[in-house]
Amino acid sequence: MRIALCQFNPTIGKLQENRKRILDFSLQAQKKGAVVVFFPELALSGYPPRDLLERAAFLREHQAQLEKLAAELPKDLYVILGCFILPEQSASRRPYNSAAVLHAGVIENLVHKQLLPTYDVFDEHRYFEAASEQSCISILGKRFAITLCEDAWNDVRSESSGHYSSNPLATLVEQKPDVLINLSASPFTLKKPQERGAMFSTIAKKYALPLVMVNQVGGNDDLIFDGHSALYGPRGELCLTATGFKEELLVGDLDQLSEVTKPDCSEDGMVLDALILGITDYARKCGFKQAVLGLSGGVDSALCAALAAKALGPKNVLGVGMSTRFTSKQSVEDAMALASNLGIEWKHLNIDPVFECYRGMLKPVLEEDSQATGDTTFENLQSRIRGASLMAISNRYGHLLLSTGNKSELAVGYCTLYGDMAGGLAVISDLPKAMVYRICRKLNEREGRDVIPERVLLKEPSAELRPDQKDSDSLPPYEVLDPILEMFVENGLSADEIVAKGFDAVTVKRIVSMVRLNEYKRRQMPPGLIVTTKAFGPGRRYPIAQGYDA
Amino acid sequence: MRIALCQFNPTIGKLQENRKRILDFSLQAQKKGAVVVFFPELALSGYPPRDLLERAAFLREHQAQLEKLAAELPKDLYVILGCFILPEQSASRRPYNSAAVLHAGVIENLVHKQLLPTYDVFDEHRYFEAASEQSCISILGKRFAITLCEDAWNDVRSESSGHYSSNPLATLVEQKPDVLINLSASPFTLKKPQERGAMFSTIAKKYALPLVMVNQVGGNDDLIFDGHSALYGPRGELCLTATGFKEELLVGDLDQLSEVTKPDCSEDGMVLDALILGITDYARKCGFKQAVLGLSGGVDSALCAALAAKALGPKNVLGVGMSTRFTSKQSVEDAMALASNLGIEWKHLNIDPVFECYRGMLKPVLEEDSQATGDTTFENLQSRIRGASLMAISNRYGHLLLSTGNKSELAVGYCTLYGDMAGGLAVISDLPKAMVYRICRKLNEREGRDVIPERVLLKEPSAELRPDQKDSDSLPPYEVLDPILEMFVENGLSADEIVAKGFDAVTVKRIVSMVRLNEYKRRQMPPGLIVTTKAFGPGRRYPIAQGYDA
Repeated sequence: MRIALCQFNPTIGKLQENRKRILDFSLQAQKKGAVVVFFPELALSGYPPRDLLERAAFLREHQAQLEKLAAELPKDLYVILGCFILPEQSASRRPYNSAAVLHAGVIENLVHKQLLPTYDVFDEHRYFEAASEQSCISILGKRFAITLCEDAWNDVRSESSGHYSSNPLATLVEQKPDVLINLSASPFTLKKPQERGAMFSTIAKKYALPLVMVNQVGGNDDLIFDGHSALYGPRGELCLTATGFKEELLVGDLDQLSEVTKPDCSEDGMVLDALILGITDYARKCGFKQAVLGLSGGVDSALCAALAAKALGPKNVLGVGMSTRFTSKQSVEDAMALASNLGIEWKHLNIDPVFECYRGMLKPVLEEDSQATGDTTFENLQSRIRGASLMAISNRYGHLLLSTGNKSELAVGYCTLYGDMAGGLAVISDLPKAMVYRICRKLNEREGRDVIPERVLLKEPSAELRPDQKDSDSLPPYEVLDPILEMFVENGLSADEIVAKGFDAVTVKRIVSMVRLNEYKRRQMPPGLIVTTKAFGPGRRYPIAQGYDA
Repeated sequence: MRIALCQFNPTIGKLQENRKRILDFSLQAQKKGAVVVFFPELALSGYPPRDLLERAAFLREHQAQLEKLAAELPKDLYVILGCFILPEQSASRRPYNSAAVLHAGVIENLVHKQLLPTYDVFDEHRYFEAASEQSCISILGKRFAITLCEDAWNDVRSESSGHYSSNPLATLVEQKPDVLINLSASPFTLKKPQERGAMFSTIAKKYALPLVMVNQVGGNDDLIFDGHSALYGPRGELCLTATGFKEELLVGDLDQLSEVTKPDCSEDGMVLDALILGITDYARKCGFKQAVLGLSGGVDSALCAALAAKALGPKNVLGVGMSTRFTSKQSVEDAMALASNLGIEWKHLNIDPVFECYRGMLKPVLEEDSQATGDTTFENLQSRIRGASLMAISNRYGHLLLSTGNKSELAVGYCTLYGDMAGGLAVISDLPKAMVYRICRKLNEREGRDVIPERVLLKEPSAELRPDQKDSDSLPPYEVLDPILEMFVENGLSADEIVAKGFDAVTVKRIVSMVRLNEYKRRQMPPGLIVTTKAFGPGRRYPIAQGYDA
């Protein structure tokens, strides 16, 4: 039985376009001999449609497009894809998250998801009815056990273990299937592709059955779906595997399985691919062709510019240097060298006259000028002049403004709201400072040359908002800050627990308090591409007016 | 049996302070003769604690404070309060949302919530285990049927109907209780207090039992809890009722019920109270004493200033006028008259020199100056100069910046990101333009004088960002825009359904498209006080990069 795994990149809500592209892929698959074609979870709507799922007209239109697709497909082909379906007899306004078997012009069969992830970035209980049972489906003499994403994640130990008391996969296996199928919309985080792959391999081996996992690919706002769809043999051996971070159509034969070697991809390489895809798709799906960003000569904006150049093409990226009296000659040289290495356009402004003009205007309302006393009013003002200048360029030319702050800064609020935080997409807001350096080096390695100048990677970080300023004047060194933040933000440890691991108590409590007090800034951040297991943004929800500091 | 209803205003996460205040209230209640004291849902932690509930140390500290409270309370008093409790024997990391009976120094009994609201602003499935059953609890010879908020909302028809298949209240009633109890954290929206009251009255009458409903009060970021705790007699008659939007301790006797008259409160009056409480509590719980806002002379900023003056005291509010060549003399006069009526401080800036300085600086990067062609680059720039100036004042003096945009503008993007959208709290972001006027008139009526000058209420709205500009140049008149937005945003109707109601198809489609295209701005808005059934903010979750436009 020849099957096709279609690692599909839908645009959320573009039902007609997604339907046409599913049809095209299906015809291609049939041409290559496939008789059954698999698409990911919520392939027709894109994942996650969020509150579109609460709009009755959206549900109706989705159903209409699904039926149209069934009617358009070749009658002899089986297409199994993720979609949502309103329960027929229920007072509920909520649909199921389902797999539909399209065949012979109709929706021939349905399987509904049981385990609805409702944690981190996932809100499936908000949108979907949970099914209470699933049945195997026979197609051309083979029994398929079809699960939707999370339904397969409570079988072998995984990050989802402990959320659910039932194990839909194990229950389905009791029905003696011939093949296990999982339609997924499983987003990328660090190490996730490897862990997901290992988990599905273990499941295939455990039940001694071939297993098909087809995952979405593509960037949707902050979420990046990595793909890595695969077919495993009954010994858990990898038999087919799709490239990560790309659409792909894989064709194979369930009755003639043979092992392939696992493609080599480093963790840093995946982060690089993920970020590039995240920019590409956010721009494309929002209708931007070009991007603009501030280039300070520092490492953060250097990485963002390099990623944008890869994502959109160097001709479509504009870097803007915005100097003040505090900007070093080296910073401007480094920014220009970077722009030249990347082949992007470079413009340069001196913001001092505007800054002086502001100071004059504000004199009557800001009586004392306490720049010496640690007051950051004028530091923030410089940053906001830059933000407003970049937004003016964005407004005039329709360029997407990329914001360039990293996760370490964002965590402790070492960033200016409406200043360097301004933008439509935060490119590296989920990369701790140390990871920023690592990804820069990986990028240079891939390019085979120092696209990001070595000097940028070696100099001490500075915001250059006052004379001789260094990040380390205001913050603990990143080697101290980053591990504390990882324990606090990603792993959920308390201040006491972090201190117990040998970190300085005063430093830890200060950092924990800074994270809490800067929640208001992060509430107003643009969507930020997610690469760690706990990113600032919709997957991390904290009150602003709250007093818990531990 | 004398009981007390404690309409409590906790600060989220301030476990120690909340514990001490619960103890104080309990002692007061006992002094007034109460033997059983009721506090709202999640009284000890505040509602909603959001992802604090994922922190193991927070759960442990909450449990410790709960036990400490039990030990501190008078041994002969029964205190029934909302809290969360980790299941004793379960692999789950999630607590129950519970009612605890504190008595004789210990946690004597527990009831766990069954229906976990997971829609709009509610995320309870993200945080809590759902209980599968509840039992009545006997206290001093009476059987109490205790429910937590939503558990009672699936009995008579309500906004929650259709979300759940079970009815915990009805099941509890089969156990023959003597009294029905509901501990709530039920936030305000328009008409909600009236509907909630009517629902609980109907329930009391239906089961011919007295019913106690004790609700949280206070502002927590965007949510405003209105209180309106009450005791109903077995004929549904109101026997005790707390003032809305204030902490209050009500004491009554379950065996001597007598009807009271329902306090008169208009819908607009409640909105006014809600907004004032929202500002007061956001400022207090975040540690702000003073606020700053831009005063344009327009109706939106006038209302916000008046509300801030009520919330924080006029001496703690600074209004700033920021004129350009496009600012009319009347606007400045109106803003000054308002400031004088309110008794708030008033400062005035001319932003033209900064604007001209920006234009000079940006000339090399913004080659053509296309102000005549409908390009809004320079309109936005003016707004951003104002935003940055207000933020400079906020940074220097520690004032809370209030943003003053209304819901109609925010819906269609007639507002500037990092400009007029800048601020820590959006005061009227959930008030359509027509409601802004109504609430102004209500405020003037309450004050018994035109605090907000009549001229401000009569003139045509204008952003004054270019010569002779009127809102109606860019937008349909608000009488057309507001009803369309209400149908689209609040009621979830599609463009076609709105057109079918007799609205112009071109206008409707244009507005629907503007709402979609401006999602990116709203993603970066500050928390906005919620007063309608569907506010922009965390209760309305849409993808940005999406293509559904109907």
